[in-house]
Amino acid sequence: MVAEIVSVGTELLMGQVVNTDAQFIAQRLAPLGFQVFYHTTVGDNVKRLTTVVHQAVERSDVVVFTGGLGPTDDDLTKETVAAALGLTVELIPEEAERLKKHFESRGYAFTPNNLKQASFPKNAIILPNAFGTAPGCIMTAENKTAILLPGPPRELFPMFQNHVMPYLERMSGNKLYSRELRIFGKGESSVTYELRDIIENQTNPTVAPYVKTGEVSLRVTALCQNEQEGESLVRPMIGEIISRLGDIVYSTVGESLPETCARMLTDDQLTLAVAESCTGGLVASDLVAIPGCSKYLVEGCVAYSDETKMRRLDVKKETLDRFGAVSEQCAREMAEGMRASSGTDYALATTGFAGPDGGTEQDPVGTVYIAIAAANGTTAKRIQLFGERARIREISTLHAFDMLRRRLCL
Amino acid sequence: MVAEIVSVGTELLMGQVVNTDAQFIAQRLAPLGFQVFYHTTVGDNVKRLTTVVHQAVERSDVVVFTGGLGPTDDDLTKETVAAALGLTVELIPEEAERLKKHFESRGYAFTPNNLKQASFPKNAIILPNAFGTAPGCIMTAENKTAILLPGPPRELFPMFQNHVMPYLERMSGNKLYSRELRIFGKGESSVTYELRDIIENQTNPTVAPYVKTGEVSLRVTALCQNEQEGESLVRPMIGEIISRLGDIVYSTVGESLPETCARMLTDDQLTLAVAESCTGGLVASDLVAIPGCSKYLVEGCVAYSDETKMRRLDVKKETLDRFGAVSEQCAREMAEGMRASSGTDYALATTGFAGPDGGTEQDPVGTVYIAIAAANGTTAKRIQLFGERARIREISTLHAFDMLRRRLCL
Repeated sequence: MVAEIVSVGTELLMGQVVNTDAQFIAQRLAPLGFQVFYHTTVGDNVKRLTTVVHQAVERSDVVVFTGGLGPTDDDLTKETVAAALGLTVELIPEEAERLKKHFESRGYAFTPNNLKQASFPKNAIILPNAFGTAPGCIMTAENKTAILLPGPPRELFPMFQNHVMPYLERMSGNKLYSRELRIFGKGESSVTYELRDIIENQTNPTVAPYVKTGEVSLRVTALCQNEQEGESLVRPMIGEIISRLGDIVYSTVGESLPETCARMLTDDQLTLAVAESCTGGLVASDLVAIPGCSKYLVEGCVAYSDETKMRRLDVKKETLDRFGAVSEQCAREMAEGMRASSGTDYALATTGFAGPDGGTEQDPVGTVYIAIAAANGTTAKRIQLFGERARIREISTLHAFDMLRRRLCL
Repeated sequence: MVAEIVSVGTELLMGQVVNTDAQFIAQRLAPLGFQVFYHTTVGDNVKRLTTVVHQAVERSDVVVFTGGLGPTDDDLTKETVAAALGLTVELIPEEAERLKKHFESRGYAFTPNNLKQASFPKNAIILPNAFGTAPGCIMTAENKTAILLPGPPRELFPMFQNHVMPYLERMSGNKLYSRELRIFGKGESSVTYELRDIIENQTNPTVAPYVKTGEVSLRVTALCQNEQEGESLVRPMIGEIISRLGDIVYSTVGESLPETCARMLTDDQLTLAVAESCTGGLVASDLVAIPGCSKYLVEGCVAYSDETKMRRLDVKKETLDRFGAVSEQCAREMAEGMRASSGTDYALATTGFAGPDGGTEQDPVGTVYIAIAAANGTTAKRIQLFGERARIREISTLHAFDMLRRRLCL
C-alpha cells in the first residue's frame, strides 16, 4: 500500500520548527510495508491545502496529516480533509463534554471556539490526546484513509505509538517487531558496505541504518504475527551482522554507550569517578541523565586548567611542564589522582585539544587522550578527531564510554 | 516572488534523517521577501522526481533543491531538473580538473563516475563545495531559477550562506540585516501575545519567534540596502520589544545564556566554580563548550550523592539529615563549600529532584534549588519544573545561568 505524509503549518514553511513529526512517522510506515513516496509541507491556507489534499488522496491509499487541529480559525486540516473525502464534520456531544471537563479540571476557561476540537465526521475514529486538547482522528472514504494528528511532537509521538500503530498493523495485517543494534567505531558508509548484500536483498526482516552523532544504529525489523515469531525472524539476522562487524556492535537492544556502561557498573556493583578536561562535564552529564546514577557515579570533576589538574587531581607539575596537559601522561595522572581521592573502583579521565585554538605539531586540534585507572592498572589511548569544538567534545565522550565498556568486559 | 523547497532523498522519505536543510533554507527565504508555500520531499526516482520538478517550476519562481548531487546512478537531481528546464548537462573541463586534483590531494582514487559531479548546463553558476566533492549550481531558464544544493547539512549550510544568499539578495534587490533577541523567563505564547500587534502588523522589519528548549528567540530582520540602514531599521523595533518585555530579554545579539555569562565573567575578570547535583555536569559542559573557558572556569564538581556533597563540598551531615539534599540549605552549603575550596569569586550550585523517582510532598519531582555564593553573600532560589528528567535538567541549567547573569549585572 502507498502512504504519504502531509504536514500542515506555516511555522514549518517558515522554518520556525524542524519537521521531526514527518521523520517519526516515516520511520514507522516503511517497516510496516507501506511505500512512502512523498512528504509535503503546506501552510494554513484553504486553497493550497485543498490542492495538496486532493493530490495526496488521489495518489496514495493512506495519508497521514500533522498539524492544524487546534481551536483557531487558522486550523483547517480536519474540515479540509473531510470535504475532500466527501464527509462533513459535526459536533460530537460526548467529545464536547470530555473537552469541557478537561478544561475545568485544569482551571482553564472553556471558550466556544474550543468546540471545533470536538467536531468530527460521523464515523471517524477519534484518537485521544494524552498531552494536549486536540484529539486526532482517522477518516475513511472510498478505500482511502486519512489519519489526522496534532502537530506538537510531544502530543503526536505517543498518539501515533498508542493509537495509530495498532490501527496500521491491523490494516497491513502485520505486526512489527524490531531490535536496534548500536555500533561505535565505524562510519555509516563502511557499515553499510560490509552489509551491502544483506541491505540490497532484504525482505523480512529489513535492516535500516540510522546515523547518530559519531555512531551508527541499525534497526532490524520483522513483519510478523506476534513477538515470538518476530524474535525468531530477527535473531539470525542479528547473529549474521555481529559475525561480520564484531565487537563494534555494543548493544542489540538499543542501549546507548552511557546506558551500556551504567548497566555494567550497576550489575557488577562497581563505582566510577570521572575527571574531565576537554569533555568538561559531558561524560558526567551523560551518566547523570540516566536515572539511578547515584549507585555507581561517586564524583565528577571538571578540571580544565593546569592549576586545577594539580590541586584537585594531583597531576605533577613536572608532567605538565614536560609533556603538557594534553598528553598520555597527564591523562593517566588525572585518572589515577581522581581514583585515589574518590576511592572508586574505576576512574576515567579525558584531556585534549578541542579547538579552535591550541594544539601542537604532533598533537593538533582534535587530539584527545583518554585514561582509565583501576586496581589492576591504568590504560590510556590517544585519538585523533576532526571538526568543530562541539563535535570533538561529543565524539571524545563516546570514545571514553567505549573504552570504559571494553575495559568492563575484561 | 514565490519560492519552494524540494528535498530529494530516499533517506528522508524513510525517516533515516530529519530534514534540517528545509528548515535552514526556509528560515532564510522568508525574510528576503520570498513567499514559501510548499516543501516537498521525494525519493531518488526519475519519474516521481520529474513530476515534482514540473509542478514546482510551474507554480514557483525559485525552486531550491537539496540532495541527489553525488556521483552514483541514484543521484538524479541535476539531470532531471535540467531536463525539466529544457537544458542539457555537459562535462565542464575546468570542474573535472578541479575535482581530480581534490581527489589526488586527499589520496582518494578518482573513478569515472565522479565526472558526473563535474557536469552542468552550459550557463549554470557553479557553487563551490568547501566541505565535500559535489558542487551546487544555479540554473535559469524562462524566468525560472533552480538552485541545486548538496544534501549533507555541513556542506549545504556554508554553501547557502556564502554563495546562495548573495545571489538571492541580488535577485530580490534587498539585503537582509537581522538581530536575534534571546528571552528567558516567558513562554512563546506569552511573548507573542505581548507582541501580537507588532507581529500582526509587521512589514519591515519583520519579527519572527523561534522556540528553543526552555526559551524563546525573536529574529528581527530588516530588508535594506546596507548594514547601516538595516541597523537603523531594526534598532527602534528592538527598543520597543525590550520596553514591553523588560529584562527577560537577556541578549540582543543572539548570545546564549552560557555565552552571556562567559562574556560577563571574562570582561570583569571574575572566576567561577560550579557544584552540580541534578544538573550533573550540564552547567560546566555548557561553559566548556565556549572557547576560552579556562579564563574564568576554575573547577566543576559533580556531586550527586550525599557522601560526595559532604566530602567534597563540606555540606554538613545535619543539613542533609534535617532538610535533605534537595533543599535551599543544601544548595547554599554546596555553593559556599565549592567557593571556599576553589577560591573563586563566584560559585554556583544546583540540587533537585530530576525524576522519575524521588521527591516529597512539598518538593515533588521537578523541584530544583539553585544557589550562588560570592564575597557579598549567598543567594538561593527554588524553582518548580515539569516534564521528563532530561527536560528538568536542561531547564534547571538555564535557570542557573539566568540567575548568574542577573547576579553579575548587580
